[in-house]
Amino acid sequence: MDDNKAKVIFQPAGRRGEVPKGITLIEASRLLGVDIESLCGEKKVCGKCRIRIEEGLFEKYGIQSSASHVSPWQEEEEKFINAEAREAGYRLGCVAKVEGDVLVFVPEESRAGKQVVSKAARDIHIEHNPAVKIYYVEMDPPTFEEPTGDFERICRELEKEYGLKDLKSDLFTLQQIPTAAREGKWKVTVSVWMDQEIIRVRPGKVENSYGIAIDVGTTTVAGYFCNLNTMEVIDTVSLMNPQCKYGEDVMARITFHMMNPDGLKRMSDDIIEGLNWLIDQAIEGTYPPKKKKKDENGKVVKGEDGEPVMVEAPEEGKTYLRLTREDIEDMTLVGNTAMHHILLQLNPEYVGLAPFPPVIHHSLDIRARDLDIKINPSAYVHVLPNEAGFVGADNVGVLIAEEPYKSDEIQLIIDIGTNGELVFGNKEKMISSSCATGPALEGAQLAFGMRAAPGAIERIKIDPETHEVDYKVIGRDAWRKYSEAKEMKVKGICGSGILDVLAELYRAGVITKSGVFNKKQKSNRSRKNADTGQPEFVLAWSEETSIDKDVVITQKDVRQIQLAKGALHCGCKLMMRRMGMQKMDTVKIAGAFGTHVDREKALIMGLFPDCEIDKILGVGNAAGDGARAALLNREKRVEANWVSRNVEYIELTVEEDFQQQFMEAMQIPHMKDEFPHLEGVVPEEILHQK
Amino acid sequence: MDDNKAKVIFQPAGRRGEVPKGITLIEASRLLGVDIESLCGEKKVCGKCRIRIEEGLFEKYGIQSSASHVSPWQEEEEKFINAEAREAGYRLGCVAKVEGDVLVFVPEESRAGKQVVSKAARDIHIEHNPAVKIYYVEMDPPTFEEPTGDFERICRELEKEYGLKDLKSDLFTLQQIPTAAREGKWKVTVSVWMDQEIIRVRPGKVENSYGIAIDVGTTTVAGYFCNLNTMEVIDTVSLMNPQCKYGEDVMARITFHMMNPDGLKRMSDDIIEGLNWLIDQAIEGTYPPKKKKKDENGKVVKGEDGEPVMVEAPEEGKTYLRLTREDIEDMTLVGNTAMHHILLQLNPEYVGLAPFPPVIHHSLDIRARDLDIKINPSAYVHVLPNEAGFVGADNVGVLIAEEPYKSDEIQLIIDIGTNGELVFGNKEKMISSSCATGPALEGAQLAFGMRAAPGAIERIKIDPETHEVDYKVIGRDAWRKYSEAKEMKVKGICGSGILDVLAELYRAGVITKSGVFNKKQKSNRSRKNADTGQPEFVLAWSEETSIDKDVVITQKDVRQIQLAKGALHCGCKLMMRRMGMQKMDTVKIAGAFGTHVDREKALIMGLFPDCEIDKILGVGNAAGDGARAALLNREKRVEANWVSRNVEYIELTVEEDFQQQFMEAMQIPHMKDEFPHLEGVVPEEILHQK
Repeated sequence: MDDNKAKVIFQPAGRRGEVPKGITLIEASRLLGVDIESLCGEKKVCGKCRIRIEEGLFEKYGIQSSASHVSPWQEEEEKFINAEAREAGYRLGCVAKVEGDVLVFVPEESRAGKQVVSKAARDIHIEHNPAVKIYYVEMDPPTFEEPTGDFERICRELEKEYGLKDLKSDLFTLQQIPTAAREGKWKVTVSVWMDQEIIRVRPGKVENSYGIAIDVGTTTVAGYFCNLNTMEVIDTVSLMNPQCKYGEDVMARITFHMMNPDGLKRMSDDIIEGLNWLIDQAIEGTYPPKKKKKDENGKVVKGEDGEPVMVEAPEEGKTYLRLTREDIEDMTLVGNTAMHHILLQLNPEYVGLAPFPPVIHHSLDIRARDLDIKINPSAYVHVLPNEAGFVGADNVGVLIAEEPYKSDEIQLIIDIGTNGELVFGNKEKMISSSCATGPALEGAQLAFGMRAAPGAIERIKIDPETHEVDYKVIGRDAWRKYSEAKEMKVKGICGSGILDVLAELYRAGVITKSGVFNKKQKSNRSRKNADTGQPEFVLAWSEETSIDKDVVITQKDVRQIQLAKGALHCGCKLMMRRMGMQKMDTVKIAGAFGTHVDREKALIMGLFPDCEIDKILGVGNAAGDGARAALLNREKRVEANWVSRNVEYIELTVEEDFQQQFMEAMQIPHMKDEFPHLEGVVPEEILHQK
Repeated sequence: MDDNKAKVIFQPAGRRGEVPKGITLIEASRLLGVDIESLCGEKKVCGKCRIRIEEGLFEKYGIQSSASHVSPWQEEEEKFINAEAREAGYRLGCVAKVEGDVLVFVPEESRAGKQVVSKAARDIHIEHNPAVKIYYVEMDPPTFEEPTGDFERICRELEKEYGLKDLKSDLFTLQQIPTAAREGKWKVTVSVWMDQEIIRVRPGKVENSYGIAIDVGTTTVAGYFCNLNTMEVIDTVSLMNPQCKYGEDVMARITFHMMNPDGLKRMSDDIIEGLNWLIDQAIEGTYPPKKKKKDENGKVVKGEDGEPVMVEAPEEGKTYLRLTREDIEDMTLVGNTAMHHILLQLNPEYVGLAPFPPVIHHSLDIRARDLDIKINPSAYVHVLPNEAGFVGADNVGVLIAEEPYKSDEIQLIIDIGTNGELVFGNKEKMISSSCATGPALEGAQLAFGMRAAPGAIERIKIDPETHEVDYKVIGRDAWRKYSEAKEMKVKGICGSGILDVLAELYRAGVITKSGVFNKKQKSNRSRKNADTGQPEFVLAWSEETSIDKDVVITQKDVRQIQLAKGALHCGCKLMMRRMGMQKMDTVKIAGAFGTHVDREKALIMGLFPDCEIDKILGVGNAAGDGARAALLNREKRVEANWVSRNVEYIELTVEEDFQQQFMEAMQIPHMKDEFPHLEGVVPEEILHQK
């Protein structure tokens, strides 16, 4: 065996292989295809990548594993691994480097699992005017008197019948023309992009063409697969952003790029691979499901390879489109500026560095094949424009979906993803800004924060009297009080649960308005952590979890959430001040957070300045809706470029009293006079608490 | 060893390897990298691929070679291999299939050697207005007040300084921008294509940019490497079209495509590889030559690998540009319609099938990377338009270089390549046509025809009295009569020699005006072939050759040449008739043939209708000049598209009396009254011969 390599085995996944000595265990996990959580992008600050080195001779794998086969203990690990855990072999995956053969156990909480994503397309009004349109033409075949070339023959008819002039053709399309024209007996269906370029020629008359609109979020990627002619959303597909393994938030990804010479390409390749997977899902959905073939006796038929033979099992009465990737002839993309830049391999470094200029604002039309995106190779991918370094194409998507620039009402549009993006104004004027909410509202950086995956607490109630807790986890319909403890299998808390937790802790008097744990303890759930001495509150006892320990919310967690909500609230206030406004008419909350958030609790928490509770609207994945609007109506692309340059971006952190405003905004809740709508919602004594 | 494979060795090249049984020896030669002549594209009709199977045990290679290890003798081979040669083991490489181990000897005349190519750029007038221009801009760096993106920042300056609006950027270029802008301290040089798209951004101020114009001929490819700013031709580079191995002429290539599922791709890949080689030559020429490094004692210094260390040896006073492929920012391409289609992988089948429609007439701008052409990946390759299936972009190149459409004079422009292309007219009206000259005028399909390579007879004189022959070969300055026999090393006759031979045979009375060998023999050079009984004339005796046999011109050869010149002459006459003209003012002969042809002999031969001898001009590689004009002046691209659709293409073969006209045109020479300018050139008795 190569002296410079070592054998590494990851359990319970069972993945194993040889890796170069000197790389970290988290790097080794990537090489071997194991996903370990790394919320901070290996900056040794999140502690999510705790793993255990097993000691002993593992004959099955032919290795002698030892804790001494990894690099020595580092000070940074002490924050996350106490003496006992250290004794048991725990290390941080981003610290410990491979120096010899090891068998590594990845505890469940450190595994980066598949997230449950729900980003259904909303029913918004879109004019029908897609960038790609299909035209049917009939031609005369060439003769000695009139031997004009195939392409010019098609163009002549397109001009005569539909008024299309000066068309070009992609080379790859041109290559299809001679065969298509003759196969269709000089009748063809032509796909034309933006009335400018022929991107597909099919024999005969074809009625439909397809496109996909994709929203690349920092955490989640969602695709809306549409019929370009009927505007129907055929399917909604989604996946976790595969870049999550490089770090949870935008800054972690930018850091990964700066620390690794090939980091940008790796992250780009990963998201492109993800998009292709998404496209495959969309295509597969147009075929019937498959089932094992059975003979007349009901016995499964096996093929020559001994595997069951699979046959199509169409649902009765259902027709299947049976499409191929080539049938996807248009695509739109939105994402925040960093996701935009990383996907396109545009250096994102300066987006993360004051004064945060992006490489480009304007929309881009990029040939799909230039991005290695496996749709029709002649198709274009339309990437929507960016507003600023921290207000990206996703926010432009939100704007063209919500159209505040056409409205009389003063709107505040909040898009809470891993970063918070704010737009404020109406048809008179609009300003935007971003605020560093951090990932806390999405569940990251908390002791038991996690993504919206099975086992995550998403709703919670705390009895103000007994402090007893009832909750619901993703993946199980029944609440705790209707279940056996062992049925809950809690792993942590996700975004939508976090606001609940804090509002309930506050309502129950567990914490004060400044976010400090109340000293008067009502139950054994309020306690001090044995190791840190910090106050914490138990949400689920270890017997209710699948990770064998109490799931708690700590003082530090509360602070994290306060920072997030403070950033958001402060941002809104400063924007209102800049516009000279006291009040807004509507608050729209976009993103998955907006879909799940409890409006009442958002007000209690003071996520944003006061507003009538009925005027707070969750608008779902408005960024994705915007991408879909741009797919189905090319005028929306023009509108997007206009709006991206006509919303004024405000850098909030340079405001003189930013620090003070921010500190104030961290308090919960604000005064009754600031929040008249909380009357009756929050107990009187809390509302008037000083 | 795999039972389905056999060992094949090619001598004298020494190439060997295992090949699948069942393929022909010519296919095996390709697999093993040996070039065997195949003028007909393996249609078993040219007989150029004669090879010899050696019998015996070749211990060195561990094989037992036997004539019985190839497939049985076929009737088609009898035409080219007589009984004696058959006895000696001769076979056709395109017929004999590998069935077991064989050692194959490739005789010199069957080897496809490197051709001598001379296609220097002519000094034609071109306006300076390249498609790619460079602009220097200085920007302010971004600030919090003005954090506009890098791309928009550049565009703003380009609009302010140079009036360029609505610019786009290629993605690959966009990727360079952030680094270039900061490296150049917000001063950059921007390359803009057609005032539309940014294709390159370099830090600081740069003065020059470069482009290459390429003429893809059926046989020869020539490239003109130019400075786009000074218009200087920095270098002229050329190579054989690597597709020659698939067949000598356009139809053979089209046939190869039709017979092989991957034929089109293979031929396209080959020419692209050729273009990239050409580009490498151009780039290498911008560096000093290298020489072996020597120490102070004059001893060659060797590196660790034992090989001499090479160092640059710049010529004194010479500066070197030291360019890279990325520095080539524009490229234009011309070629006949079949070469155009094959390079672009457009199905060329219908170009070869009546009524011969091309896939496209219009010019194309194709991203270099889409063609795998290794210049700047964001650069465009501008492919000039085609006139018709048999009058391609190369002819358009000739037209925009010669501009007959701006002339009062009636011009006949002949481009004799492997195919003959004719344009006739002036600024009032122009028509074009093509004629199947066949490759005879380029030396193919004749008993000893060959390409313009060393050993080819290129000039010849026959004494009318003694019939003694004097000649000159390529690669040797001295004529035969000043040389020893063994110094001549004749291999065959090339294009420029062929017209000489026929004119001299006719002038000396060896052949009559109908092309029949005169029965009155004056010397032992006129004889009957021992095998075929056909008359032939010895041009070089075997002791003057390197192929150990007499180089002769046969009755069949004469017929081939007559067919070629008949096609050309007939084409011209029919075009004149169509235009209602009796006479033309100027004849321009383009192509390598035009450069080398003896005007007087062209008239004697009746290659075209009568014209004043001073008005017959060789215009060299006018197609290449046109490509260069389009590279340096974008208006020429517009002109090219206009002219390609405003020259009326005439299909001559459908004229009613085509057959009769063609038969008449085959005669040599035409009557004295038809050719008054031949007076004093051709002996009286011949001019008046009936």
